Amino acid sequence: MNSYSIKELLKKQPTGDTVEVNGWVKTFRSNRFIALNDGSTIHNLQCVVDFENFDDTLLKQISTGAALRISGTLVESQGRGQSVEIQANDIFVHGEADPETYPIQPKKHSLEFLREKAHLRVRTNTFSAVMRVRSALAFAIHSYFQQNGFYYMHAPIVTGSDAEGAGEMFRVSTLDSKNPPLTENGEVDHSQDFFGKETNLTVSGQLEAETYAMGLGKVYTFGPTFRAENSNTSRHLAEFWMIEPEMAFYDLDANMDLSEDFIKWILQYVLDNCQDDLEFLEKRLLDEEKSKPQAERSEMPLIEKLKFVVENNFKRVSYTEAIDILRNSKPNKKKKFQFLINEWGADLQSEHERFLVEKHFKCPVILFDYPADIKAFYMRLNEDGKTVRAMDVLFPGIGEIVGGSQREERLEVLQQKIKALDIDEKELWWYLDLRRFGTAVHSGFGLGFERMVQFATGMGNIRDVIPYPRTPQNAEF
Amino acid sequence: MNSYSIKELLKKQPTGDTVEVNGWVKTFRSNRFIALNDGSTIHNLQCVVDFENFDDTLLKQISTGAALRISGTLVESQGRGQSVEIQANDIFVHGEADPETYPIQPKKHSLEFLREKAHLRVRTNTFSAVMRVRSALAFAIHSYFQQNGFYYMHAPIVTGSDAEGAGEMFRVSTLDSKNPPLTENGEVDHSQDFFGKETNLTVSGQLEAETYAMGLGKVYTFGPTFRAENSNTSRHLAEFWMIEPEMAFYDLDANMDLSEDFIKWILQYVLDNCQDDLEFLEKRLLDEEKSKPQAERSEMPLIEKLKFVVENNFKRVSYTEAIDILRNSKPNKKKKFQFLINEWGADLQSEHERFLVEKHFKCPVILFDYPADIKAFYMRLNEDGKTVRAMDVLFPGIGEIVGGSQREERLEVLQQKIKALDIDEKELWWYLDLRRFGTAVHSGFGLGFERMVQFATGMGNIRDVIPYPRTPQNAEF
Repeated sequence: MNSYSIKELLKKQPTGDTVEVNGWVKTFRSNRFIALNDGSTIHNLQCVVDFENFDDTLLKQISTGAALRISGTLVESQGRGQSVEIQANDIFVHGEADPETYPIQPKKHSLEFLREKAHLRVRTNTFSAVMRVRSALAFAIHSYFQQNGFYYMHAPIVTGSDAEGAGEMFRVSTLDSKNPPLTENGEVDHSQDFFGKETNLTVSGQLEAETYAMGLGKVYTFGPTFRAENSNTSRHLAEFWMIEPEMAFYDLDANMDLSEDFIKWILQYVLDNCQDDLEFLEKRLLDEEKSKPQAERSEMPLIEKLKFVVENNFKRVSYTEAIDILRNSKPNKKKKFQFLINEWGADLQSEHERFLVEKHFKCPVILFDYPADIKAFYMRLNEDGKTVRAMDVLFPGIGEIVGGSQREERLEVLQQKIKALDIDEKELWWYLDLRRFGTAVHSGFGLGFERMVQFATGMGNIRDVIPYPRTPQNAEF
Repeated sequence: MNSYSIKELLKKQPTGDTVEVNGWVKTFRSNRFIALNDGSTIHNLQCVVDFENFDDTLLKQISTGAALRISGTLVESQGRGQSVEIQANDIFVHGEADPETYPIQPKKHSLEFLREKAHLRVRTNTFSAVMRVRSALAFAIHSYFQQNGFYYMHAPIVTGSDAEGAGEMFRVSTLDSKNPPLTENGEVDHSQDFFGKETNLTVSGQLEAETYAMGLGKVYTFGPTFRAENSNTSRHLAEFWMIEPEMAFYDLDANMDLSEDFIKWILQYVLDNCQDDLEFLEKRLLDEEKSKPQAERSEMPLIEKLKFVVENNFKRVSYTEAIDILRNSKPNKKKKFQFLINEWGADLQSEHERFLVEKHFKCPVILFDYPADIKAFYMRLNEDGKTVRAMDVLFPGIGEIVGGSQREERLEVLQQKIKALDIDEKELWWYLDLRRFGTAVHSGFGLGFERMVQFATGMGNIRDVIPYPRTPQNAEF
């Protein structure tokens, strides 16, 4: 007798073979119909129980959440929406789930309630679908890069380097937290710490990825990054996964081409490989939005939105053009923006990005050539002396999903920038070495993985697209 | 004009087309032959310079490590070992590399020297080969699991759970390290910390992976894990990557089958996809071992060793059988083992594992059914009441490469175990919930990624198979 996943069984013909299947009970109707799910697919397998032939004690153990092994005959289904079902011959109860105490009952649970049960929520349709899409998206990312000549590199998580300034950091230490050893000057003596110096969790693997791009040519990271910012929003996590490709000999145009091609490819992969889950998630989102006013609902159903991104060119607009558009826009003139755009040099807020994407261009937008003053020190200065070769990819509903740039490859220009920012050059000796020895044009970008999962699944809160979200005041499990 | 990677160019026919290529100079001989490498392959592309046609100033800029863009005609190579070369028409110097200061000169550097230059060492043949194999191995791991119905899950890195006891942990905090806030009792007040409690870096994602296996069926993690142990050996890192598959409805036999099939598949993938790098690394290892006494040299060349693992069954041996073999072994009787094996219950040391693998069975070995007392609390107790359903996969030269078990799925048995170990049940409420609701037989294992990279590349020191190793007193870059 063969054991199959439910995903496999649902693709089979009703051969009348005896098969075995394991899973958890979704529902048990009329003492006769078990809807069984094993996590391999959003769909359940119907198992028909001839209750006269089973012991009553056994039948009483079968309730939502119970784990069963069922063997039986694979027959044509009489029910709708499925081609096969199992006529159960034998049922073994791995484990029961007391309906009085098991929290995941067959009714609607709020996402907030399920966050408190993060260890069980993956047993629901919504979270199993989200996590299968998340897995597919991660594999799509690896597949894309591997097929295109990139090498995967693991940037360090614990870092002794604190010069990047991408955000607030978490300290990593093994010193006694109550009575840390002190130096003669009364400061905490990190020379006695595990790594012999003060260390933090990385905020980005970019600088290290650059060192690898300057040897392997094209590399990408895919690892966790951390921001100790007290942001309790639906778009921020203290621990999130980031993908950072970095390419030697790529200028900003090549970087923009890559980011667009990459995003389209991975979304197409999800469309091709997660159709059932996307259909479920699309329906879930429509249901959720029914209670919202029209203006707050999604403009397109989920799958149509993904196809729209895949099939349309991203609009490339310079920061300077974008400022002109925004300055002359209705919400700016009517003072509807919270932050009004008065002059060139203003940093763009989420409301501006969303206006450009959702109202003005009505497609994903790549903004480029930002003012140097509002961007990071490592971005390449343009000949105009005031803009840098930065780019941000802006998405409907999400805002910035990718941020990247051509990197400053000229030693003297980079040194001046570092000096102006009062960063100690010694902290970045190795990063500067890349400009001392065999420097070249190079570029890269960063994609926040959870933001992309949000986009692909239509989930509104970033806490619902990662198994165990870490946010201020929350590190349960 | 088309731009190609060197890996692509070396596969082309000498068509006489004009092509463009970017890369770094490996060597420049006789003012005429540039060996160019762009990291895409271990092989260099020969670019022939008709020096009479080039400016002398330009030619002087061409030295080892300089970054160049060369365009020219793709012609049949006159040299050995390559089918095509480029007759250079135009050379652009992206960046020079002063031979007086550039550390990576075309001569033999010690691995120790290169560890100090971790930001540049990937430009050497050895490290570029290791890192390409590392990348391929990572992708093989994802591919294997995705093809076999597993879902990738990201276990949390920062954890508030400290009940697992797999090793010493690093504390993660944003509290003032010098003057942390204290409670009334004079203890550090972690309620004021970022996450509202004391948090650490994860030592394993297993417990969280179990929660996902009990919903999605088959999952795997692939993420960084941390051990704050003061182990300065060639086999230990404070930060390393681990792969942890976890499968509902798998018993220990199925777990052993999976681990063996998995290991063989990923090594076959590397054999199929990294032939050039493996040939280079095999030769490197042979060279390195020439200076060693015969007894310390590898028994097989690298590629033969990988094929041997792929083509032979792993020997499955119970702990009890292994103890018998070891007790009666020559090194035990002649007291050559550092730790003599006198009785059942002894923990096996690396010397014993290597004796079994390298001397006795001469093949990879899976040991199973260990004494409960020397294994973790979550492993399933056998009916004998004294052994647990644990398994370790032992590899030649490496020792333990995989450790796994069938998990204890019975609530009462697990509760007793937790109590006996004095672990607070409240710490593990969510882990116990898995046994309360729909519990089932399940299993999993952990593979230390860097150990596998060491095995596949023949590198002796684990610091040389990860871009930026973290070890006691070392978190540079």
